[in-house]
Amino acid sequence: MRAMRISARVINTHFLSKGHRSNSFGARSISTSSFRNMKYVQFTYNADPSTVRVGYIDCCNVVDINSADCGMPHTMIDILKKGVVDKVAELRQCNPTSVPLTDVTLVAPIHGVDKILCVALNYADHCREQNLEQPKLPIIFSKFSSTIIGQNEPLRLRTEIVKKVDWEVELAVVIGQKASAVPAAEAYKYIFGYTVAQDISARDWQKEKNGGQFLLGKSQDGFCPIGPCILTSDEIGDPHNLDIKCTLNGVEKQSSNTSNLIHTIPNIIERLTSVMTLLPGDLILTGTPGGVGVHRNPPEFLKPGDVIRSEIQKIGSFEIKVEQF
Amino acid sequence: MRAMRISARVINTHFLSKGHRSNSFGARSISTSSFRNMKYVQFTYNADPSTVRVGYIDCCNVVDINSADCGMPHTMIDILKKGVVDKVAELRQCNPTSVPLTDVTLVAPIHGVDKILCVALNYADHCREQNLEQPKLPIIFSKFSSTIIGQNEPLRLRTEIVKKVDWEVELAVVIGQKASAVPAAEAYKYIFGYTVAQDISARDWQKEKNGGQFLLGKSQDGFCPIGPCILTSDEIGDPHNLDIKCTLNGVEKQSSNTSNLIHTIPNIIERLTSVMTLLPGDLILTGTPGGVGVHRNPPEFLKPGDVIRSEIQKIGSFEIKVEQF
Repeated sequence: MRAMRISARVINTHFLSKGHRSNSFGARSISTSSFRNMKYVQFTYNADPSTVRVGYIDCCNVVDINSADCGMPHTMIDILKKGVVDKVAELRQCNPTSVPLTDVTLVAPIHGVDKILCVALNYADHCREQNLEQPKLPIIFSKFSSTIIGQNEPLRLRTEIVKKVDWEVELAVVIGQKASAVPAAEAYKYIFGYTVAQDISARDWQKEKNGGQFLLGKSQDGFCPIGPCILTSDEIGDPHNLDIKCTLNGVEKQSSNTSNLIHTIPNIIERLTSVMTLLPGDLILTGTPGGVGVHRNPPEFLKPGDVIRSEIQKIGSFEIKVEQF
Repeated sequence: MRAMRISARVINTHFLSKGHRSNSFGARSISTSSFRNMKYVQFTYNADPSTVRVGYIDCCNVVDINSADCGMPHTMIDILKKGVVDKVAELRQCNPTSVPLTDVTLVAPIHGVDKILCVALNYADHCREQNLEQPKLPIIFSKFSSTIIGQNEPLRLRTEIVKKVDWEVELAVVIGQKASAVPAAEAYKYIFGYTVAQDISARDWQKEKNGGQFLLGKSQDGFCPIGPCILTSDEIGDPHNLDIKCTLNGVEKQSSNTSNLIHTIPNIIERLTSVMTLLPGDLILTGTPGGVGVHRNPPEFLKPGDVIRSEIQKIGSFEIKVEQF
């Protein structure tokens, strides 16, 4: 994971807001876990850019979990795999020292996961813009784990061979524990938190160059930017009530609310776990609203120099710069 | 990774053969690497079934790389990621002690990889049996890393919801080093070795239940059995000249030769690396010959109690038992 200097604009005001607390949603059982309202990040120290650390946001600072307890894993995926989230919450009670966000470089909040599952056609306006019916059941495709990049890493396009690269902002679910054959009513128990994702898509390779299978259009290097943090499920309240937005070079391209999801997160988890076991850290990208480039008139695609900003209420926003491969 | 007791029949005679040496193929530049003709395995000691170790076959024995050098990684994927293959070859020069194969339980020869890439429709008779034209370029789909199982682990079917599960024996390539934008003529340099794979496929979920995307029919738990070993590329000679066979409960179902591959391994690697970076340990399943269950008359599918035997010349064979989930 390559990391560069954090820019001041990346430390957005969402890190300062407390967000909606789960207790106000208790009666609806939105979240039965107890992750103690945290925003997890991964970062590097500017003095040691090759070593990824895991921490959490505390106002304008970041608490380095590894320096607070040297026995803790150094990556988000290992925090989840080893089931030590509660230990992090305990650690917070001791008011560990923190460092200013300006002293670190944020990278993707998780990497090295087993699965990135993506839901196709999950907003009505995104179905309409391509004249497709809303699917009765979620349609699932995938990306490889190595497609994850974070803010401060460029999206590098192979422009000689890949011509139609598009944006798709999405709410991503982070699985907290092993989940198999989970009924929708129990699905929230298995969710650790949420992050903001871009399901970057090369339309030529997705639709024209691989026999109808999406994979090569969806799994190119860097095609899964995520950030800025993982907001724990008890902080988010109802994940189906969040404004979601994508801007390109400062111009708004997508703007919706997750209340418009066709298939809800519990239903997606029920469907997936009916045939496979989800593992800690697995990501589910829940679909994108209308406003993607390929269905504009005329169509618009990403090019080197572009800046994509992805934002979801409560979680925050992050920017990715497009470069030539 | 669950492991059970190895059965005597699993230690097949292929482990005893030396195979075709690369030097006879030198003029054709089949392999430019120097991995010293080895068969790598992963295994557990019967007394400690939860700890995976990595080793290599030496006649009827296995050399435990970790006990020969306690500084070596404990998994095949880490041997490749850390680039210490040459160190293993050096270690062999010291004649380290070995243990009889009967004292260990073989598991999948690699796990925890980033990508499992699969080629669809890559044998002419498999295209013919479903009345499809041979694709002009390789069509690629994927499985998740967690679908890998090894011999001595059951394939557990969710028979209530998954009805049409099929076999597909395939030659699998194991990538040895990071590979991006690799021309076909240089592709062999990036191959570490070869293993035998089953691209287990739930035809109902592959073709009917996920909007045409193969993923849910290909990535169910246990749907990527591999084994018995990884044969290094310098041992295999020409990978396009290997008998390949699948039997079900002792009855031959598939029998072909990798000379019948439509798209060769170098061409597949050129295609893949034109849009993505392959990483050490990545697997490429090169396609299956004719004889799968769904295109038989009447169609045949896997059921609990079945035993699938997969075999490729020089690499060896392994068996997987089908069970109820």
